[in-house]
Amino acid sequence: MSDFVVIDHRRVDRLGFGEAVLCAWKPVAVIEEAIARFREREMPVLLTRLSADQFNALSAEVRNTLDYCHISQTAFFGKPQTLRHTPTVGIVTAGSSDMGPAKEAVRSLAFHGIGCREIYDVGVAGLWRLERKLDVIRACPIVIVAAGMDAALVSVLGGLVPSLIIALPTSVGYGAANEGETALKAILASCAPGIVTVNIDNGYGAALAALRALNTNGDNRGHPYP
Amino acid sequence: MSDFVVIDHRRVDRLGFGEAVLCAWKPVAVIEEAIARFREREMPVLLTRLSADQFNALSAEVRNTLDYCHISQTAFFGKPQTLRHTPTVGIVTAGSSDMGPAKEAVRSLAFHGIGCREIYDVGVAGLWRLERKLDVIRACPIVIVAAGMDAALVSVLGGLVPSLIIALPTSVGYGAANEGETALKAILASCAPGIVTVNIDNGYGAALAALRALNTNGDNRGHPYP
Amino acid sequence: MSDFVVIDHRRVDRLGFGEAVLCAWKPVAVIEEAIARFREREMPVLLTRLSADQFNALSAEVRNTLDYCHISQTAFFGKPQTLRHTPTVGIVTAGSSDMGPAKEAVRSLAFHGIGCREIYDVGVAGLWRLERKLDVIRACPIVIVAAGMDAALVSVLGGLVPSLIIALPTSVGYGAANEGETALKAILASCAPGIVTVNIDNGYGAALAALRALNTNGDNRGHPYP
Amino acid sequence: MSDFVVIDHRRVDRLGFGEAVLCAWKPVAVIEEAIARFREREMPVLLTRLSADQFNALSAEVRNTLDYCHISQTAFFGKPQTLRHTPTVGIVTAGSSDMGPAKEAVRSLAFHGIGCREIYDVGVAGLWRLERKLDVIRACPIVIVAAGMDAALVSVLGGLVPSLIIALPTSVGYGAANEGETALKAILASCAPGIVTVNIDNGYGAALAALRALNTNGDNRGHPYP
Amino acid sequence: MSDFVVIDHRRVDRLGFGEAVLCAWKPVAVIEEAIARFREREMPVLLTRLSADQFNALSAEVRNTLDYCHISQTAFFGKPQTLRHTPTVGIVTAGSSDMGPAKEAVRSLAFHGIGCREIYDVGVAGLWRLERKLDVIRACPIVIVAAGMDAALVSVLGGLVPSLIIALPTSVGYGAANEGETALKAILASCAPGIVTVNIDNGYGAALAALRALNTNGDNRGHPYP
Amino acid sequence: MSDFVVIDHRRVDRLGFGEAVLCAWKPVAVIEEAIARFREREMPVLLTRLSADQFNALSAEVRNTLDYCHISQTAFFGKPQTLRHTPTVGIVTAGSSDMGPAKEAVRSLAFHGIGCREIYDVGVAGLWRLERKLDVIRACPIVIVAAGMDAALVSVLGGLVPSLIIALPTSVGYGAANEGETALKAILASCAPGIVTVNIDNGYGAALAALRALNTNGDNRGHPYP
Amino acid sequence: MSDFVVIDHRRVDRLGFGEAVLCAWKPVAVIEEAIARFREREMPVLLTRLSADQFNALSAEVRNTLDYCHISQTAFFGKPQTLRHTPTVGIVTAGSSDMGPAKEAVRSLAFHGIGCREIYDVGVAGLWRLERKLDVIRACPIVIVAAGMDAALVSVLGGLVPSLIIALPTSVGYGAANEGETALKAILASCAPGIVTVNIDNGYGAALAALRALNTNGDNRGHPYP
Amino acid sequence: MSDFVVIDHRRVDRLGFGEAVLCAWKPVAVIEEAIARFREREMPVLLTRLSADQFNALSAEVRNTLDYCHISQTAFFGKPQTLRHTPTVGIVTAGSSDMGPAKEAVRSLAFHGIGCREIYDVGVAGLWRLERKLDVIRACPIVIVAAGMDAALVSVLGGLVPSLIIALPTSVGYGAANEGETALKAILASCAPGIVTVNIDNGYGAALAALRALNTNGDNRGHPYP
Repeated sequence: MSDFVVIDHRRVDRLGFGEAVLCAWKPVAVIEEAIARFREREMPVLLTRLSADQFNALSAEVRNTLDYCHISQTAFFGKPQTLRHTPTVGIVTAGSSDMGPAKEAVRSLAFHGIGCREIYDVGVAGLWRLERKLDVIRACPIVIVAAGMDAALVSVLGGLVPSLIIALPTSVGYGAANEGETALKAILASCAPGIVTVNIDNGYGAALAALRALNTNGDNRGHPYP
Repeated sequence: MSDFVVIDHRRVDRLGFGEAVLCAWKPVAVIEEAIARFREREMPVLLTRLSADQFNALSAEVRNTLDYCHISQTAFFGKPQTLRHTPTVGIVTAGSSDMGPAKEAVRSLAFHGIGCREIYDVGVAGLWRLERKLDVIRACPIVIVAAGMDAALVSVLGGLVPSLIIALPTSVGYGAANEGETALKAILASCAPGIVTVNIDNGYGAALAALRALNTNGDNRGHPYP
Repeated sequence: MSDFVVIDHRRVDRLGFGEAVLCAWKPVAVIEEAIARFREREMPVLLTRLSADQFNALSAEVRNTLDYCHISQTAFFGKPQTLRHTPTVGIVTAGSSDMGPAKEAVRSLAFHGIGCREIYDVGVAGLWRLERKLDVIRACPIVIVAAGMDAALVSVLGGLVPSLIIALPTSVGYGAANEGETALKAILASCAPGIVTVNIDNGYGAALAALRALNTNGDNRGHPYP
Repeated sequence: MSDFVVIDHRRVDRLGFGEAVLCAWKPVAVIEEAIARFREREMPVLLTRLSADQFNALSAEVRNTLDYCHISQTAFFGKPQTLRHTPTVGIVTAGSSDMGPAKEAVRSLAFHGIGCREIYDVGVAGLWRLERKLDVIRACPIVIVAAGMDAALVSVLGGLVPSLIIALPTSVGYGAANEGETALKAILASCAPGIVTVNIDNGYGAALAALRALNTNGDNRGHPYP
Repeated sequence: MSDFVVIDHRRVDRLGFGEAVLCAWKPVAVIEEAIARFREREMPVLLTRLSADQFNALSAEVRNTLDYCHISQTAFFGKPQTLRHTPTVGIVTAGSSDMGPAKEAVRSLAFHGIGCREIYDVGVAGLWRLERKLDVIRACPIVIVAAGMDAALVSVLGGLVPSLIIALPTSVGYGAANEGETALKAILASCAPGIVTVNIDNGYGAALAALRALNTNGDNRGHPYP
Repeated sequence: MSDFVVIDHRRVDRLGFGEAVLCAWKPVAVIEEAIARFREREMPVLLTRLSADQFNALSAEVRNTLDYCHISQTAFFGKPQTLRHTPTVGIVTAGSSDMGPAKEAVRSLAFHGIGCREIYDVGVAGLWRLERKLDVIRACPIVIVAAGMDAALVSVLGGLVPSLIIALPTSVGYGAANEGETALKAILASCAPGIVTVNIDNGYGAALAALRALNTNGDNRGHPYP
Repeated sequence: MSDFVVIDHRRVDRLGFGEAVLCAWKPVAVIEEAIARFREREMPVLLTRLSADQFNALSAEVRNTLDYCHISQTAFFGKPQTLRHTPTVGIVTAGSSDMGPAKEAVRSLAFHGIGCREIYDVGVAGLWRLERKLDVIRACPIVIVAAGMDAALVSVLGGLVPSLIIALPTSVGYGAANEGETALKAILASCAPGIVTVNIDNGYGAALAALRALNTNGDNRGHPYP
Repeated sequence: MSDFVVIDHRRVDRLGFGEAVLCAWKPVAVIEEAIARFREREMPVLLTRLSADQFNALSAEVRNTLDYCHISQTAFFGKPQTLRHTPTVGIVTAGSSDMGPAKEAVRSLAFHGIGCREIYDVGVAGLWRLERKLDVIRACPIVIVAAGMDAALVSVLGGLVPSLIIALPTSVGYGAANEGETALKAILASCAPGIVTVNIDNGYGAALAALRALNTNGDNRGHPYP
């Protein structure tokens, strides 16, 4: 399988963060091959969408090198970056069913040394739950909001806090929810100004966007290309 | 054109309200023919989606018999029902751009003797506008909520008031708003319980549903079929 | 799992009915956590979309506290409200395949103290079946109509009875039925006036809408917010 | 323009009916070229979707050779076939707005010598209108049913008469009606057995299908190919 | 389960053919209940979309009363009608993968006493296969054409034979074939005149449409309604 | 028209920026009413999607108070904020046809005191055009990338610069470009990590998202709610 | 306008052909600017999708430098390449309505020195028209096939000739034809092997693909990058 | 099963290559029947989309005659053509997850005697990986590019090499990737000129298109039809 995998080992120099391995659609042999490549270069790597079945099918030797989380289906190979002190990113979910993608974002940020403030199950059907957390959310310069179904929480938060809001539509819902497409489109058509979004269930993407925004004023920016 | 039109003059007996004439897709000659049929039977009739162009193309004689409203594109032929005292229906819009369909609902209810309480431009991007109207809205046993784009107002209201909420998605918005389809689907996938909806921009339908609900306990119910 | 669940315990005060737990997409641990929260507050709760597999995976202790129904995939935790005497809600289905969502509506109403009149398998392909039940249906001020495929039953009933008609499109059908989307859209585009609809297969939503409509004139309305 | 048009003059031998000219998307010069080809061969021809603008842009000489109908946007060049005595085809519409495609079918059948029984505006929102025409409809061995919006009339008729029912979905409706796609899909997913359909607004296609069915037992069948 | 099933036993009087039981989406108990109803009335019945799993889950007693076909997933309960001598219906498939829906049509026609002429695997990628069967196909007054993917065979046959052509789009194909939707839409947009279609994979519907067409001139027509 | 407009004058306190007026779908009378409200409060306001036709239909008096830009269809009422010194936002377009939405972003940022670095027509079909601008782009901590059709430029830039990349899909393209939906979906499915997007042609939204990100570390953050 | 346009003047070196200017979505000033850039470099250029309205709005001076074709909406600025002797590309259309995109391909090839063999109006509804041209088509190593509606001609030709077949789906058709999407998807799902396609109505793209294929074995290949 | 399969044994004469067997949707008995037909005629045959489950369910006797590849799910029955010396086709993938369809193309070409140059995992998120392979790719007159998600690699390569580029969109990706539809549409809307595409995951189709292009100038062209 060795010909199929060419890791982008220069990414950390260009962008300030390394490549992650998206495990969905990959046979176990290819996942092991990819980990081997990072091991050779002594680079840590984040694995995403590594299902429990895939994880269990890895050789015990490989499995033991991984820090695996069932809820987010992510794994760390090697040592994550040291946690920075500030700032923290807020993670807000509309319902408890959105915790999978939310945790993928939390773990992806943790791998890159960013801590999170997590606030779950504050959807707008019971607005008081959101209101009592509003000060905490406002204190975060960047807020990732995970919501499926109508994703109304995103618009409501967009009108209440000045932070950069990165919407994370989830595939929670049935029928007209269309596996997250309705949440995604409602976010794009939001009446609140300046909301941005990533793909459905893409917690990793939301985390990396936060990372890009945090690096905006810092000195952690990558080197010129090539 | 006389063969093309068969009015359902028995509807008022069966359902408690008469047929309306949907003017879109109809040549002016057919609209005039339909009005003539109601005139023969001395029945009043509501015309919907009568564009300004269509209205102006009607013969002056017919035009003079109509009470026409440009915003809602509706016309009354004959005398509307006397306004009932109570209850009133609440009409709430997310933005000022939703006023066309909202006014179609208001006029349709007025034609059937139902008054409205109208509250405009209280979308969730500025939640305080909604909150200061909440008592007024709660006082209405039935609330029609017109909203386009993300339609988040519908879910927020659904969590705040116990009234029957009839959503009226509008075609306001661009791109991912898909001419109202996103608002419609977000409403259907709402996280708030027990919300119902009508078709996009269907103010007439929302009004008639309110009428059905109001008749629920009253004595204005139609006669058995046939 | 305790951080993921924040029950909206104030809902019954605001809206006149409590929160339900949508079990789809939730791991068993989260469902048990949610039930524990209601137990702490000594509040009964309705669980919906609790699959047989999920039910069987619950601990025996939890399972024994539940009144579970396989057809509707609903469960009652705690004591449902006492059945009111009147009025009853009519539940009509087009085919016997629509009974799952129909029973979800029946059970949701029962949990809130509302009785139903159930009429199954009266689709328009054999119109006489509907006609002999018409008097029974007309007697119900609110009628929930469950239909998949073309959902033509909804339009036909809409033309025959003056009741509030809450359409419940179902995912029954194949090919162009598009898992209920065609039924839903046909209902929205219905030629019968004043029909409202909920999401595909959303029996719970249809029931709660009926509850809202019934409360319209009653004294069971929630308290002001907040 | 003469190289662009190759008429299928052998069609009448193969299929028992000649080629028609679909005028939409064709510049006026191409339409005139096509008519010239038929004139050379002394063959009559049916023109469909010939808009009033296109008709008026034709040279006066050509225009005078045509029998044009504004409602159906069809024209006859040359002499239609003699009207056969029996059988007649039934044409039923749900609303008066469906008359354009319905008349396209009527004219297309007339051009090929088939008479029609036309029944307009009998949609299911007022079922009594249909019922009083049912004997007339049942007497037609083939029935074309034109309906937009929910197209519920098609399913209802499909359950009431044993005739071959050719559905003709129309683009009448807005929002979720999706320019006829919902009517089309509802027909395809009909609960009534053995319904067939043609494309949206394709009155010509419905007529030709009726012609094929009528030829089924007759001696008007085309010759072997090639 | 007995309340869920109301058979349309009067259908044979109205339409000339009886109700069939669509087994998909039905629990085994409901299927058995339906069969019991027909047994009570001593009426034979056709079962469609009865999967092998469902068939095997039926009680041995019920299973033994059925004539089951694995390819078409149909079963006969009771005695089919005697085979009529003429005419026969042609069944043509584009590929061998289309045989499931094609056989559903063949079995449905056989149940109602109509024989078929079956011609398989003559798709247009190798046109000579079709041409050598053309005389056989032309001899059939009604031709059912089953095709997935691009469904080009339907248009080609539509240009070659004068018969009534009932298209039967199938879900064969991947990617842009969209589970049969592309075949369906290509048929609806066919350049050949007078083609009609049924829903994707609806072999039963194609057969019943053929039955309606055959009854067109015969004396097997149903009785007036009601 | 005065009842239809309720400006969210508190937004600047909550979010650090004021409300804008989306002029599409609004009659001229409503636009004038909205401007009057801001004039009363002596607040400047940004108008977006103000077409040339709408602009010309405004009263001369109102028109003269506006700074209007034809390319971006935006207008400033009142005095924009003073231009901050740093940082600047990069605006990159794939083609010259994308300049409308790009200029909407530039003008929206200018109104809020943010300057831009504009780089046009550097789509990936000629990669050298992008490469020679890469240093300029990398120097911007936030980059808005406007692209239609395949939007490949977004992914390529995402792999080359560490900045926060806000994609701005445009409706440029035909056929499978689906009026911007393909560009939008390609961006959401981008192989480059951490890309975020706004709605199709939503230059205003992209600008406001940049504003939120810039405020992230600054002291321009809004006040607590309410 | 001069900042908006950056021509890819190096394309001819890299790819063997120069950039074309897609005029749709471009204001006249931008089109004139683009032409000026090519004039400065003394490079000829092809303009596509230049509508008659745009052409007429150009300054007389610019207009006089162009060789404009109304059917294909293309213009040549400067001198096209000398026509090569062989090979020729075949252009086949299903109907006369497909001539616009077909002529765009012909003109684009002519601009690059490639001659065409044009065969119009040979759709499969009358197969004999295609068959009598088959020898001509087979003689072309590359065949561009323009077809809308069901695009069945593409599959039929794909089974009959060994040439490289480049499908050019057109937007001809209505209803289920979906403005060319059905033709496109039918081509992609074709039962004939090895068919490739370009975007709907993209005659220019089909021509350029042919050019790439012709260069395959020749010595007209571009230079290395950069 | 013998009636269901009619092999197109004349294809090799007409087109220069033989029929392949698409095994998806076919029961094992039909696959064995198809192989038997080729064995009778002593013709080799390529089987595609033969899943591991299907392969294992074949009789041991048949299985032993096949050369099966798990990655591409293809099998060779009989002896492939001798490998030609030149030219080779380039196969480029964006990610390692695209290797299934890519290998289907490689194996299909190998079966017909064409060798490939394979270049994997060079997606544009790390452009340097592509650039260091550019000379190898440019040397191939025909390049098949397999990419899912945003398929941006196709446009980038289209701007860099003059070869005939056959895009092979893959179903890799989630959410807005829509199982390959976004990749497909992005390719069709590519800003790079002259790109052609096949259906999603259709490696076989891409290979056969390459074969048609290679035969363009050679002497391996099929014989006239019929």
